[in-house]
Amino acid sequence: MKRFIASLILITCLHATAQVPALYNNISTSVQTIHSKILNQQRQIYLYKPALDSSDADNTLPVLYLLDGENHFNIVASYINYLSRWKVIPKIIVVGIINTDRRKDLTPTNNLISFDGKVDSSYKTTGGNQQFFKFIQQELMPYVQANYKPGPYKILAGHSFGGITAINCMLTQPEMFDAYIAVSPSLWWHNKYVLQLTAQKLQHLSALNKKFFYSTGNEGGGFRNDVQALDSIVTNSKLPGFAFKYIDYPNESHMTEPIPAYYDALKFIYKNWADSVKKE
Amino acid sequence: MKRFIASLILITCLHATAQVPALYNNISTSVQTIHSKILNQQRQIYLYKPALDSSDADNTLPVLYLLDGENHFNIVASYINYLSRWKVIPKIIVVGIINTDRRKDLTPTNNLISFDGKVDSSYKTTGGNQQFFKFIQQELMPYVQANYKPGPYKILAGHSFGGITAINCMLTQPEMFDAYIAVSPSLWWHNKYVLQLTAQKLQHLSALNKKFFYSTGNEGGGFRNDVQALDSIVTNSKLPGFAFKYIDYPNESHMTEPIPAYYDALKFIYKNWADSVKKE
Repeated sequence: MKRFIASLILITCLHATAQVPALYNNISTSVQTIHSKILNQQRQIYLYKPALDSSDADNTLPVLYLLDGENHFNIVASYINYLSRWKVIPKIIVVGIINTDRRKDLTPTNNLISFDGKVDSSYKTTGGNQQFFKFIQQELMPYVQANYKPGPYKILAGHSFGGITAINCMLTQPEMFDAYIAVSPSLWWHNKYVLQLTAQKLQHLSALNKKFFYSTGNEGGGFRNDVQALDSIVTNSKLPGFAFKYIDYPNESHMTEPIPAYYDALKFIYKNWADSVKKE
Repeated sequence: MKRFIASLILITCLHATAQVPALYNNISTSVQTIHSKILNQQRQIYLYKPALDSSDADNTLPVLYLLDGENHFNIVASYINYLSRWKVIPKIIVVGIINTDRRKDLTPTNNLISFDGKVDSSYKTTGGNQQFFKFIQQELMPYVQANYKPGPYKILAGHSFGGITAINCMLTQPEMFDAYIAVSPSLWWHNKYVLQLTAQKLQHLSALNKKFFYSTGNEGGGFRNDVQALDSIVTNSKLPGFAFKYIDYPNESHMTEPIPAYYDALKFIYKNWADSVKKE
């Protein structure tokens, strides 16, 4: 109730100044091109850099690396712009990675079998996850570091194939990121390769200092069962330091689910952030 | 399940072409300035115009007029861009109206009493709704019509004071819009003026061919009770042609609620749209 009155006062005050439009329209996004020696190609990124003011500390901004950038960048950047304005989450830099060959970069293994069990020759380039991680770690992250001087906290977020890519990165290159968002990860891929990898890897760990959000929509055909199996493995791991949250969205399709899921994921990762800011 | 496989195929195909980044980045927004003779001031609008392709019919795009444009424009435009791409809703033009004196334009009556019952002299300019509607109808709509040649369907959307403004417009200038979104309308304003107006107006109507979405967050102090009272009035009116939906978001604050509410409102207004498109 006190918070509500405070927000009414805040909204009233903010809207009263003539400078508001320029301030609020400041979703400063750009399209940038990077030459990757590792991938031997030009790569485009969408970049959202929050506007800083005098109360912001230098070099502390987290960075969210978003897979399928062309698909979800505007929504995620809008959420972060809006929620950070209202002090629900911190200001975060968003790096949306644009696909060139989605099936290559966003799969952990080479396989030709599609979701419905048929051979699909268009999957012939699959299996590029590790090369793609190398590009992110050795080329993209240094580029972002040099040009935007963020803080150390990094989030990897993806949907569908991007979801299994995020989980595969957590399991095989755990030094790269601090938090992971996997919206409807395609765990069916290649005889449930990532699901099996999760079971194997987690049992050998004594701790995992990560945050992990994962979700499902109304997908059929065993898609959801696989993510629920993942949830059991994660829940049973009881690993110290490992904070995780699974949300099922039965009323969302595979393609609408990112709308609530990216919002809920940001709230999960920064659950105690507002309190910690107040205490400081 | 068939839809899910279809969406997997669609996402795969779309991502396979090199033109994808340019296409997907096309959130073509602009800031425009209009001189209003009625309000005797310059007014800024944010305008989102969806990219059209050869399958789009001319002059059919609905227009969503968004109050508090500087606050929610990016989120609403991103939703429409994304959801229309996946054929959940049609392409919609968004006109975000930037505030100059929010308390003047977005209140139905002149009153000095704030939400907590105290006299607040900063409310002295309140009561400008009808002048503001005149600006929208006689200046802004003709401007949008001349420059963007939309179809006839129009939506008015607002939050808090913008919410009571949307309801007041539905009741007093019903010819202006076809659908209304009132996210946490401030029904407490001036002895529940808009709540009483709703009760009076609806009982004299024999039909109301409108769509109406309204919602609440976790506001206290009677704020939610007022909206629930509105819901009773609307539900009991049983007016032919009147389609309405109320959603309560107990886990959202007054300022985070617009994130799920604008998404749910768009889904409500275009609930049967995808089916109607398929049948055509």
